[in-house]
Amino acid sequence: MSNASQVLLERVRDIPDFPRPGVLFKDLNPLFADPDAFALVLGEVASGWEGTIDLVAGIEARGFVVGAALAQRMGVGFLPVRKAGKLPGETIDQTYDLEYGTATIEIPADACEGKRVLLVDDVLATGGTAAAAVSLLERAGATVVGIEFLLEVGFLEGRRLLEGHEVAVVATV
Amino acid sequence: MSNASQVLLERVRDIPDFPRPGVLFKDLNPLFADPDAFALVLGEVASGWEGTIDLVAGIEARGFVVGAALAQRMGVGFLPVRKAGKLPGETIDQTYDLEYGTATIEIPADACEGKRVLLVDDVLATGGTAAAAVSLLERAGATVVGIEFLLEVGFLEGRRLLEGHEVAVVATV
Repeated sequence: MSNASQVLLERVRDIPDFPRPGVLFKDLNPLFADPDAFALVLGEVASGWEGTIDLVAGIEARGFVVGAALAQRMGVGFLPVRKAGKLPGETIDQTYDLEYGTATIEIPADACEGKRVLLVDDVLATGGTAAAAVSLLERAGATVVGIEFLLEVGFLEGRRLLEGHEVAVVATV
Repeated sequence: MSNASQVLLERVRDIPDFPRPGVLFKDLNPLFADPDAFALVLGEVASGWEGTIDLVAGIEARGFVVGAALAQRMGVGFLPVRKAGKLPGETIDQTYDLEYGTATIEIPADACEGKRVLLVDDVLATGGTAAAAVSLLERAGATVVGIEFLLEVGFLEGRRLLEGHEVAVVATV
């Protein structure tokens, strides 16, 4: 286990029954509150993709925290993957299934054509939102170089929805 | 006008009638997509508060982009000010009036007591959300050292709701 993995795992707070009964929520706010620990984790992520990407795309909202800090550290642009209705201007969207119902995400229509993109989020759980985001980025003309999560919840097998793409994580529980 | 102001203003995209008719939305996504321009702006913001704060608090969701990148650059922690129902664990909340109806924001209950906090968001419009966030942070025991926005929409006079606090902006339109 890398030093970054260990530092990350020490700053994950387990919250039972959130956002609904039976779910053990992995809260990374203690990591974001600790600048040295967060910098160490971001450094490990950055070193894995250095020189291979033009943009970091972050999934609303915790992926904005990871993605914006990572993009600045790597000297590349940041692209927000947003919930429907939040982005002004021309957008393209993707609807996907949740356990109950559906959700829709959007990106600006003209922001990533021909770009090499790293998609990031804080936690890989079922992988549904990330898979929809990959599809959206590809439809917009981007090459999704990889998908990075700080923490993977292994038993949910979210990687299965992301097959055919390079998936990296800092730590797995 | 500072170099950062000019670089910022060149990357603001005006979107008429978003999110509703009659509103001219100020879109900063072109700034976030340009790493050198965003770094220049963050550098100016950071230099104004260096050594005076323990935490950057960012307002969901665009304030996460600004706040997380700024906090890492300044070597301080990041605290998310979230919409109601998104934060696990014990929280405190604040409800405030919107033009139509009300909204509620939350922070973790135990995250900022005794801390010196800089509150950040992308755009100062009416100031309602920022004023509610200041109140929330103070109720949680923080000292709000200042409030920083990248862009101020002057005619909306949002500063009036923030009187008694140090308000800084990179540029005003």
